[in-house]
Amino acid sequence: MVNWTEVDQQVKTWIMEAGASIRESFKHSLSIHTKSNPNDLVTNIDEETEQFFISNIRKAYPGHSILGEEGQGDQLASLQGIVWMIDPIDGTMNFVHQQRHFAISIGIYEDGIGRLGYIYDVAHNELYYAERGNGAYMNGVRLPSLKEVPLEKALIAVNATWLVKNRYFDEKKLVELATTVRGARSYGSAALELAYVASGRLDSYLSMRLSPWDFAAGKILVEEVGGIVTNLSGDKLNMMGTNSVFAGAPILHGRILNEFLLKK
Amino acid sequence: MVNWTEVDQQVKTWIMEAGASIRESFKHSLSIHTKSNPNDLVTNIDEETEQFFISNIRKAYPGHSILGEEGQGDQLASLQGIVWMIDPIDGTMNFVHQQRHFAISIGIYEDGIGRLGYIYDVAHNELYYAERGNGAYMNGVRLPSLKEVPLEKALIAVNATWLVKNRYFDEKKLVELATTVRGARSYGSAALELAYVASGRLDSYLSMRLSPWDFAAGKILVEEVGGIVTNLSGDKLNMMGTNSVFAGAPILHGRILNEFLLKK
Repeated sequence: MVNWTEVDQQVKTWIMEAGASIRESFKHSLSIHTKSNPNDLVTNIDEETEQFFISNIRKAYPGHSILGEEGQGDQLASLQGIVWMIDPIDGTMNFVHQQRHFAISIGIYEDGIGRLGYIYDVAHNELYYAERGNGAYMNGVRLPSLKEVPLEKALIAVNATWLVKNRYFDEKKLVELATTVRGARSYGSAALELAYVASGRLDSYLSMRLSPWDFAAGKILVEEVGGIVTNLSGDKLNMMGTNSVFAGAPILHGRILNEFLLKK
Repeated sequence: MVNWTEVDQQVKTWIMEAGASIRESFKHSLSIHTKSNPNDLVTNIDEETEQFFISNIRKAYPGHSILGEEGQGDQLASLQGIVWMIDPIDGTMNFVHQQRHFAISIGIYEDGIGRLGYIYDVAHNELYYAERGNGAYMNGVRLPSLKEVPLEKALIAVNATWLVKNRYFDEKKLVELATTVRGARSYGSAALELAYVASGRLDSYLSMRLSPWDFAAGKILVEEVGGIVTNLSGDKLNMMGTNSVFAGAPILHGRILNEFLLKK
């Protein structure tokens, strides 16, 4: 039996430690920037942060598996048992250019079911987290259930360049959607954009192509406040491969799906 | 003779006071939200904030003129003398939906020349400001001169829906630009996006249609760190009417202009 309360406390401690360490390296980066390539600095922080989580998880939970972006995790044949899905820096380009608008994202799944989800906005010290069945929170404050808004009053997030011709999806449907809703944003971090959906700052988020570690935590958060997370065809997400991702409150999700995404 | 140091101190005091008052109303807004229309709440804060600045300016500087979004300012026939260009809440939709990603924007012009510019990210308590000839700052830290980056490594901001067919500009040029650069973002606040250009978080910002109070402060900030701000045709901005706006470091600005925007 897993003591999820204990795991939850442990993960939060690690996340806060990793976040503090990243913020600390920013303070030094001003002097480093001029001496070396800022991209190297970033690669180091990204890899170090993943290594920090992986070595801690392996020590504390040797029976668990790890899926991660930087390739230091496991090759999994199935989602049996407990699997940690980790993106140490979601929104790498923002991390490099802005030192903000990026997040640590950790989703913990048991036999394919999301149990615990964490998205930490490092620059703003905002921790979004959820435990399946026990609600979603930001910095200790419980997030209310998602409110439905009419399509015409919705604020959505998409990748701006996906509104143009691309090989993943018929862009005309997205263009029609983006010009029908009240506003379209693009922040460049799937984890943060899903956290914004969970906290009501965005009404929907649509992305063409994400890996499980990009959305593993966000899916748990959004579902825990009553939202729906599927791919752009309305199908269940495959937690072991790349997917398109589409999140929102149930009625809005249904309207966008039927009136735009699935429209012939 | 204007004592710009004194004006600067005065404006900062007012901005901090207005910002604190807006953050305070967010605390109460949770209980208000359920009782009345949240849009009314917002309209009130927007109008109250503009009224706060206008009454303070009229009292302290009776000879100055005011251009503002909410229509409580003056009807100006020219930019002669000292003109305050005020947007009490730039990014109203973000303000309503997110209670973040909006800014107080104030630009002070003398005979059409920008003297002092302020962009206050209220939610994050970040004040960007510049005095013509004396540099640009964020929360007291001087912003370095803009670095040139190659087009292919640039992070730009555009309005996502402007990448689709629109009546202001040939969208194909913007689509080509957005898919050539490293990444495109969309934050929904012109003032903040210009502050991001000034602080190196974005390499360029392009917008179809803005009023002087939207960009008055941002223009001063960007120019003070060595950047260029024009319309999408590369021409000087008209400070008394609507304009397209396009900002960036000089070489990047020139490349985007010549290789994309002015391309036949």
